[in-house]
Amino acid sequence: MTIIVFGGDGFCGWPTSLHLSNDGHDVVIADNLSRRRWDVELGVASLTPIATVEERLAAWEGVSGRCIEFAEVDMLDADSVAELIDRHRPDAVVHYAEQSSAPYSMIDREHAVFTQTNNVVGTLNLLFVLAEVAPTCHLVKLGTIGEYGTPNIDIEEGFIEVEHNGRRDVLPFPKQPGSFYHLSKVHDSHNLAFGARVYNLPVTDLNQGVVYGNATRETALDPRLVNRFDYDAIFGTVLNRFCVEAVAGHALTVYGNGGQTRGFINIRDTIRCVQLAIDHPAEQGDFRVFNQFTEQHSVIGLARLVQRAAASLGLETRIEHVDNPRVEAETHYYRASNESLLALGLEPHRLTETEIRSLLCSALEWRDRIAPDTLVPRVTWRRPAQRLAAT
Amino acid sequence: MTIIVFGGDGFCGWPTSLHLSNDGHDVVIADNLSRRRWDVELGVASLTPIATVEERLAAWEGVSGRCIEFAEVDMLDADSVAELIDRHRPDAVVHYAEQSSAPYSMIDREHAVFTQTNNVVGTLNLLFVLAEVAPTCHLVKLGTIGEYGTPNIDIEEGFIEVEHNGRRDVLPFPKQPGSFYHLSKVHDSHNLAFGARVYNLPVTDLNQGVVYGNATRETALDPRLVNRFDYDAIFGTVLNRFCVEAVAGHALTVYGNGGQTRGFINIRDTIRCVQLAIDHPAEQGDFRVFNQFTEQHSVIGLARLVQRAAASLGLETRIEHVDNPRVEAETHYYRASNESLLALGLEPHRLTETEIRSLLCSALEWRDRIAPDTLVPRVTWRRPAQRLAAT
Repeated sequence: MTIIVFGGDGFCGWPTSLHLSNDGHDVVIADNLSRRRWDVELGVASLTPIATVEERLAAWEGVSGRCIEFAEVDMLDADSVAELIDRHRPDAVVHYAEQSSAPYSMIDREHAVFTQTNNVVGTLNLLFVLAEVAPTCHLVKLGTIGEYGTPNIDIEEGFIEVEHNGRRDVLPFPKQPGSFYHLSKVHDSHNLAFGARVYNLPVTDLNQGVVYGNATRETALDPRLVNRFDYDAIFGTVLNRFCVEAVAGHALTVYGNGGQTRGFINIRDTIRCVQLAIDHPAEQGDFRVFNQFTEQHSVIGLARLVQRAAASLGLETRIEHVDNPRVEAETHYYRASNESLLALGLEPHRLTETEIRSLLCSALEWRDRIAPDTLVPRVTWRRPAQRLAAT
Repeated sequence: MTIIVFGGDGFCGWPTSLHLSNDGHDVVIADNLSRRRWDVELGVASLTPIATVEERLAAWEGVSGRCIEFAEVDMLDADSVAELIDRHRPDAVVHYAEQSSAPYSMIDREHAVFTQTNNVVGTLNLLFVLAEVAPTCHLVKLGTIGEYGTPNIDIEEGFIEVEHNGRRDVLPFPKQPGSFYHLSKVHDSHNLAFGARVYNLPVTDLNQGVVYGNATRETALDPRLVNRFDYDAIFGTVLNRFCVEAVAGHALTVYGNGGQTRGFINIRDTIRCVQLAIDHPAEQGDFRVFNQFTEQHSVIGLARLVQRAAASLGLETRIEHVDNPRVEAETHYYRASNESLLALGLEPHRLTETEIRSLLCSALEWRDRIAPDTLVPRVTWRRPAQRLAAT
């Protein structure tokens, strides 16, 4: 198959691209490299040193003998997206090319508007290009499990049967997202559900949990293939951040009481899920939703796991509860379904102490690159930073 | 009170502004006059001739002795919105300033992207400005009853109690909007529900039905105060369009079998609902939703009502079923709640044959201005117009 990975230079997109290439597909990475620019804007960096795109692709060709093409494309430029799709006529496109940080979206008005415009318009552009140029191409879109929020009922995969006043219907699962970023994904989901229906397109929406880990079989083949490892308070996901805090001799900073429970997934399962979705495509006109996570954890539970694994490596850490910069429930019911991808054959990597030790060892390898001040939350949910002139 | 009406030059905004001014409030109209430019773009016009903003405001001062200030503001320009809010420190803002046509949003990619960007970013800008400059100001936002689509269960006002696997929660009512325009309103609703919560703002979302009529007590006071009467296939709402078709000797064009049922509201009740919402504001941090319609009708039922009323005026009309340009259910269950505004004191104008005769007489008065070719649907839901270069 020919597959274009939009956002193929990012944390999930890069290992996905390598995995699909390794699987024998002709892979094209389309990326505007904005993720690297946000590092510069925020003064943060991946714990692991990241090669340039050119170095990455040359290294991949060296170790695999396979070529991945790169196109510098901004999805806000619909003509460029159309030209790319028209030239390659892909069988599938994977769409990761969105601003993916909740704190980034909550910095201030500009960042909220940028996040929603970038994500929603980019996805709309892709939707229209597929409708016009490649209507049989399978769109595999990354959403987030955070779209659902934390309802007091079981979370189903995209839809729920509701009985009300003696009547029944299967309806979109109600969404209660917790940031302007999560909201952008909810907007995407609504747009895609509609677009798949009216334009008769095959669409899979992968509502992904919090990703941890960074290395995959393919990224481990050469130092220039190494994947991002974000640990800062803006882009770092919680387990990666805890591992770096443990290695840096920093307290494990738990927001509030830490009862916040979410779905989690190993990066090695992320790439496998996308492969499974591609291998078992949606039907024309079908908007299907898979919840893409493998296990549930509370934040405090993860902190304790990391503390135990760190101790086994001789790293003494303490857990510190800090004021929660987010507006979110800290004690709540949480149970989400993830049956679809398991039914397609996903065999989850479990979050064992061994797995966490392996993450800690990755962090230890690069401990000299840790910038402790980037671990401290700088963004609060409760008020936007004041940038507008109020005289 | 001081009230800013964003979109105060439009079909709903203009009579609302006059009504609130007449009610003794200090009213400021903020508008970028884009609705007038869309007429030019599409080659359509209001059946009634519309005075310039300056003429309108001078006429209002002449008949009422009251001054309405006008500010030419584009809500995409956050600094201008901030400056306006900061200068007037309003007690309430009414937000009508959105692209409001479903067919317009379905023309092609550019119009879909414009509609969503304009509506979503404009609303985000207002949300942030209120959070930063005027957090006690009550935001009254116009949504649409079309956000809900046509579920096979009763439609509640914004929220629904769901029982699932033995647990219960009150959740946002699932949304199934039917155009990129309706989707933009769904996005707004999600953004505002979140924004009201995290920034502790008072927000009322009015999910309005299809509006009919055009004149109100205030707009009838002077010819220069006359309101828009849109009847074309892009901006005309169905009942207004049928009345013009009857007067033009054109068949009443029903899309598909006409079984589509929706909530309807007279423009005179629109302005009363907004007044009621302002007089009974939301609490700080509360995002409340009122369904703003007074009665339900099917499209074919409305066509028969117009046919009968027209016959009583000596106008013989026939009903013609045309291919439905939209993707929508034509036979479906529909029952929506509208209790909140009735509980606040709304006394609905009923859609009687007398009422329709009055609309027909308005149309007869301006029959020389009817452009019959603008009655024909030019936009189809099933495929976007091809504008992107596919070589």
